[in-house]
Amino acid sequence: MTQATESKPFHRLLLTGAGGGLGTMLRERIKPWADVVRLSDIKDIAPAGPGEEVVRCDLGDRAAVMALTEGVDAVLHFGGVSVEATFETIMHANILGLHHLYEAVHKRGIKRVIYASSSHVVGYYPTTQVVDANVPLRPDGIYGVSKCFGEALSRYYFDRFGIETVCLRIGSSFGEPRNARMLVTFLAYDDLVELVRCALFTPRVGHTITYGVSDNPVRWWDNRAAAHLGFEPRHSARAFADRFPAGGAWSDAGDITAVYQGGPFLTAGPIYED
Amino acid sequence: MTQATESKPFHRLLLTGAGGGLGTMLRERIKPWADVVRLSDIKDIAPAGPGEEVVRCDLGDRAAVMALTEGVDAVLHFGGVSVEATFETIMHANILGLHHLYEAVHKRGIKRVIYASSSHVVGYYPTTQVVDANVPLRPDGIYGVSKCFGEALSRYYFDRFGIETVCLRIGSSFGEPRNARMLVTFLAYDDLVELVRCALFTPRVGHTITYGVSDNPVRWWDNRAAAHLGFEPRHSARAFADRFPAGGAWSDAGDITAVYQGGPFLTAGPIYED
Amino acid sequence: MTQATESKPFHRLLLTGAGGGLGTMLRERIKPWADVVRLSDIKDIAPAGPGEEVVRCDLGDRAAVMALTEGVDAVLHFGGVSVEATFETIMHANILGLHHLYEAVHKRGIKRVIYASSSHVVGYYPTTQVVDANVPLRPDGIYGVSKCFGEALSRYYFDRFGIETVCLRIGSSFGEPRNARMLVTFLAYDDLVELVRCALFTPRVGHTITYGVSDNPVRWWDNRAAAHLGFEPRHSARAFADRFPAGGAWSDAGDITAVYQGGPFLTAGPIYED
Amino acid sequence: MTQATESKPFHRLLLTGAGGGLGTMLRERIKPWADVVRLSDIKDIAPAGPGEEVVRCDLGDRAAVMALTEGVDAVLHFGGVSVEATFETIMHANILGLHHLYEAVHKRGIKRVIYASSSHVVGYYPTTQVVDANVPLRPDGIYGVSKCFGEALSRYYFDRFGIETVCLRIGSSFGEPRNARMLVTFLAYDDLVELVRCALFTPRVGHTITYGVSDNPVRWWDNRAAAHLGFEPRHSARAFADRFPAGGAWSDAGDITAVYQGGPFLTAGPIYED
Amino acid sequence: MTQATESKPFHRLLLTGAGGGLGTMLRERIKPWADVVRLSDIKDIAPAGPGEEVVRCDLGDRAAVMALTEGVDAVLHFGGVSVEATFETIMHANILGLHHLYEAVHKRGIKRVIYASSSHVVGYYPTTQVVDANVPLRPDGIYGVSKCFGEALSRYYFDRFGIETVCLRIGSSFGEPRNARMLVTFLAYDDLVELVRCALFTPRVGHTITYGVSDNPVRWWDNRAAAHLGFEPRHSARAFADRFPAGGAWSDAGDITAVYQGGPFLTAGPIYED
Amino acid sequence: MTQATESKPFHRLLLTGAGGGLGTMLRERIKPWADVVRLSDIKDIAPAGPGEEVVRCDLGDRAAVMALTEGVDAVLHFGGVSVEATFETIMHANILGLHHLYEAVHKRGIKRVIYASSSHVVGYYPTTQVVDANVPLRPDGIYGVSKCFGEALSRYYFDRFGIETVCLRIGSSFGEPRNARMLVTFLAYDDLVELVRCALFTPRVGHTITYGVSDNPVRWWDNRAAAHLGFEPRHSARAFADRFPAGGAWSDAGDITAVYQGGPFLTAGPIYED
Repeated sequence: MTQATESKPFHRLLLTGAGGGLGTMLRERIKPWADVVRLSDIKDIAPAGPGEEVVRCDLGDRAAVMALTEGVDAVLHFGGVSVEATFETIMHANILGLHHLYEAVHKRGIKRVIYASSSHVVGYYPTTQVVDANVPLRPDGIYGVSKCFGEALSRYYFDRFGIETVCLRIGSSFGEPRNARMLVTFLAYDDLVELVRCALFTPRVGHTITYGVSDNPVRWWDNRAAAHLGFEPRHSARAFADRFPAGGAWSDAGDITAVYQGGPFLTAGPIYED
Repeated sequence: MTQATESKPFHRLLLTGAGGGLGTMLRERIKPWADVVRLSDIKDIAPAGPGEEVVRCDLGDRAAVMALTEGVDAVLHFGGVSVEATFETIMHANILGLHHLYEAVHKRGIKRVIYASSSHVVGYYPTTQVVDANVPLRPDGIYGVSKCFGEALSRYYFDRFGIETVCLRIGSSFGEPRNARMLVTFLAYDDLVELVRCALFTPRVGHTITYGVSDNPVRWWDNRAAAHLGFEPRHSARAFADRFPAGGAWSDAGDITAVYQGGPFLTAGPIYED
Repeated sequence: MTQATESKPFHRLLLTGAGGGLGTMLRERIKPWADVVRLSDIKDIAPAGPGEEVVRCDLGDRAAVMALTEGVDAVLHFGGVSVEATFETIMHANILGLHHLYEAVHKRGIKRVIYASSSHVVGYYPTTQVVDANVPLRPDGIYGVSKCFGEALSRYYFDRFGIETVCLRIGSSFGEPRNARMLVTFLAYDDLVELVRCALFTPRVGHTITYGVSDNPVRWWDNRAAAHLGFEPRHSARAFADRFPAGGAWSDAGDITAVYQGGPFLTAGPIYED
Repeated sequence: MTQATESKPFHRLLLTGAGGGLGTMLRERIKPWADVVRLSDIKDIAPAGPGEEVVRCDLGDRAAVMALTEGVDAVLHFGGVSVEATFETIMHANILGLHHLYEAVHKRGIKRVIYASSSHVVGYYPTTQVVDANVPLRPDGIYGVSKCFGEALSRYYFDRFGIETVCLRIGSSFGEPRNARMLVTFLAYDDLVELVRCALFTPRVGHTITYGVSDNPVRWWDNRAAAHLGFEPRHSARAFADRFPAGGAWSDAGDITAVYQGGPFLTAGPIYED
Repeated sequence: MTQATESKPFHRLLLTGAGGGLGTMLRERIKPWADVVRLSDIKDIAPAGPGEEVVRCDLGDRAAVMALTEGVDAVLHFGGVSVEATFETIMHANILGLHHLYEAVHKRGIKRVIYASSSHVVGYYPTTQVVDANVPLRPDGIYGVSKCFGEALSRYYFDRFGIETVCLRIGSSFGEPRNARMLVTFLAYDDLVELVRCALFTPRVGHTITYGVSDNPVRWWDNRAAAHLGFEPRHSARAFADRFPAGGAWSDAGDITAVYQGGPFLTAGPIYED
Repeated sequence: MTQATESKPFHRLLLTGAGGGLGTMLRERIKPWADVVRLSDIKDIAPAGPGEEVVRCDLGDRAAVMALTEGVDAVLHFGGVSVEATFETIMHANILGLHHLYEAVHKRGIKRVIYASSSHVVGYYPTTQVVDANVPLRPDGIYGVSKCFGEALSRYYFDRFGIETVCLRIGSSFGEPRNARMLVTFLAYDDLVELVRCALFTPRVGHTITYGVSDNPVRWWDNRAAAHLGFEPRHSARAFADRFPAGGAWSDAGDITAVYQGGPFLTAGPIYED
């Protein structure tokens, strides 16, 4: 069992993807939870402050990932590719890299991973259907397919080795909604932090899949199956509704980015080389 | 795609049944949504004010319905018979009339209908069972059967022609609850307006069935399947609970108006001629 | 409780639509079940033989239907319109006529109806999905919508008055499959007779919905919910598979008659007058 | 139908287990509901005050239970054993005693029972799974098994004789949560009183199973199926979360009291006599 | 793990209720499975033949049950009361006795029990509804309630101690169907033996609930959830259908023995002393 | 739409993995379906006979896969790794290779793929639970995870581009069952051929998931959701049951290869390099 020294709950947390949008935000917010936060990214990030360790790491580098995980109590895995890209790019980071991570987690005896999955694993469900965590997967692109892989891989490591994972099917986590679709998919930063906190601190999570979304008026995702996490969003896209008034302009039935939940991801891929 | 001119979201909305209880109320409330609101009823109603057109129309008159729908962007269909009556009366208005309407909507290229269905399509479920939008229908009278017809007809026009409909299974929409049963079924006027607004402005609705009910303490109807509409009731029958104290008088098992959700509708029909 | 005189189980059965394809076939086969079989149709049919009564009757004629049902123990309702037609034609026979029938059944104290519904109440489900009796209705035309009405009306008469109905969602009941689609939807005459027998003789049926289909290799319809009827088809379209070889010609995704179960009904309607 | 005299809704309510933790609390709170509250326990309790009757009664004593129920309008059954004990002890009170109670209720013509069942009927579901009232039972001990018996027995008396029962699957009802697990299972006294009020005053309850739990952040139990009771908890364990901080100490996969919802009950039994 | 000596799969099987109808039949049929079959009953039964041990035993006698289970590899529990009786009688045998049995099974380290439960645990479902092993229980009498207890108790012993049980919800197991209802509920002796064989020999059964019914034309019970047992009935009540022709005599809606699956059990209890 | 020349239904079928166990068997059996069968494998296979083309191809070689698919009407994809191996090996063939295949299928305008998925995508369900095609995935190893990837990828290509895939979750397809577990998972060669035939010739399949298993007595997999394929297995492991008698040797609760469906795959991986 993971033990915290002194006053902080954890000794060392690993945050991957620490240079990304969510990683940068989380970097500040998770400090109170651990004596040391180890931060990794494939690119350079701001140098380590007090209580921080910075490690540049390509997840596709097996030995590097093994080194990265030394002495870690739990992993917040926000690394990898988070947009449509060529298959090789996504495979390198999100498939090979993820396997490296779980291999290392297993060998190191790490007990829990918070995995940034994505709502794009169900992006091909219509915007007129409410889905829960148990519906068959319908990814909306190669990126989404790679997250399906991640959910399956982490399920296996739980069933086989008892390594707990919370898969966060994150919607649109930005400071503010940027378009009308995000009035539905918005996950406020504060709510993401709270969701990560729940995922990290709940005494037992097994292999849990949960949608990462604020308390927005329109809901496509039903989180009942993850009520044992105790996540209660405090923010809502309601406050931003006026910026994207519905008008009388309905979606065209031929516009798949409006008909399916994935939105613009639907037409972003697949990206074939040359 | 429907386009609004100038500042209002829609150019012309058609409200049928404009002389009924709900129609009269909606007449005032929907003005901000359209340059012109066309109002129809089988009987005389208050003359047209600014931004209004008044058309007397029997829905059973095919040509009249065809004329009624000219230049219309969307239909709020609150017309027809809303109580138990002879079969012929209900058939004329709610079956023949509804077909006339959808035929016209199709021929006119109108894209969306808000259809006042009724909770009486499931009125024969017991008051001790919570139902959602997917349970098999159990109408509680001929009126309820005519609404089952309407839900099926509108589903067909969606599947075949892509005409979107939101079926509102309205509970009891009055200014205030009028009896103990309405503490459960109450839909405040404000909430009905909000529900119509959601149904009208949501960019895509497909064929959605939703219960029209305020946030009352006792719930028979589970609206999860329609969470994509973003309807959030703001009112509750809670405020009126004191008027109809439960006392110690339980319902008698032989009183079907208490045993089944439909209440007094259960014994109101069928009405046979002579 | 219905009582048979002498050796036959029922005294008088009413078969409506006795001049139609199924009616003509059933006329011969149901004789052993009743002392008297009353046969009705809107058009002339072969004159009554021994143990038969022939009554010409328009179901839209209320008084005629009332007369038709006198002295009847149970109704096999195969009358009405069974193809796409103008709405008025279908409404007259399948909606108004059906209500006349149930009004008469109620007033006469008749206890059971076998109702020829249709698989076209779910014809808009894809041919790649297996459906059961509890899925929400998706009719594939006005004819299908009229059958949705019939299922709802009969449910009401059961819930309200205890009149039992078995709704037969008949596929394609001909002597032999006539095209590739019917390899799936085929209901052999013998199997229809057996299904009607089960529906008529099972001691209690409540309001049961069952698909009428033989034991064909490909199945779109799951009859588990009606296993209490004891219907076991003995025939299969397998024997006719060679007539309609699949070849390498797959269905085109744009051909809705192949994508949805309803087949040619999907494009047969709606039929608008003039 | 039960009738109240004068101003109070009921004439006489029977509260069994009136000397237990919940009984003592309820004794004060239910006074406004009845002219007379009859209080029973197997041990001595505080003497009757105004509007109270105190009867010492062993539920295993058939004649005593028959006497206990005379003149009673409704029963709040909180008596019996509420912890793991030897099988004989539990059987005497919770099985034999409960049958005595329902036999008496039936013979006396009493119409409704509020039955203190327990969340321990599902205590063997994992803490990572959310369950509703319809999941198959998985009791976590002999006590839980005895409550399964009670739910089945009361169901039978409803189906057979129409005696209504609300089974309250109570979590942890104390003044305050006493450990981290109770942050999930906590039912505040006020909320218990409100739940009992709903169960007692709802005009019709049939045989309803509901979880007794406050509005805590973490939820294992989904109460949708009992929404017809109108129970809305006002309290939450949230206020006590700081007392039991999660720390970084996750549950060990081998610790069944953490892996399953029943917690310490899981290892408390069965208790075999020497 | 249980080991057979020589050629027979088990060394010693215990058959309780060996003097009952099913016990007497099974006594002969299970001989090939064990070197020794220990036979018990509360009353005298035929003396032990070769490979048999006969023990008279009241299941309510704790020490006797402990002795009875010595050296046993698996238990076929067909003992106890199998009809409606006074509560005390049923409790003594089916509740207290069953607990004695599981206590002994646990203490002796016996790994598997085949438990004769009963279809009467769901006897209050209507004869027009098909149920599976996961529906909430609706017992049709005190006997049925005692079998609900048994299913819950055995579930607990599996969850807590890993003792495997197959609960057989037996229909009507006689040599032949004795009335029209048994055309539905009939379980031929050969099929019962085969079901017991599957339950006993399947390498792993966990806690399985299965209906014990032959391949009859009419089915109320859906055994899909127990397909892992591999039970394939070879007999059918079909062969006996002519003895109980349906005639035209439908069940009366007021006759609960026809409306609900439990049949005559529905009105057989509860039996109150004096 | 694919068109056959002359008498054979297809012009050219591509069979990948033609040198594997199933590929070698299929090579002979699929000849009647196409003028030309193109056979590929990563290793040398028997030279092309009449109506055959043999192409050696590493699926991880993008250009080679593009060339391989030229002029192909449909793909039977049995290539890739079919046992536990190092992650890199599996990724190269089953993930990168599969993407190459779908990229080529898309670019070539090929309409349908028969994909050899595996029952190991659900191998971590217990052997006491029956699962259907819609349960959440629980792979039992890296091989199983790679098949989860394949099911997700093919779903995406269907949703996005309409490329139809039938995913065959094949059990154990050998000439005969080789151990007791295969009495459950056995798929006879003839049945596999028939299943492939159904998958290939059914006019429309969308994205269908089906279990590939013969009509064995014990069933873990419920194929109802794929009944539209018309697959009817003709063989059964029943014929081989005597070779693997159950004896009295039950599975040990600690033996995960007996507790979960995946059997020996459960402990075969993951295989870490060095």
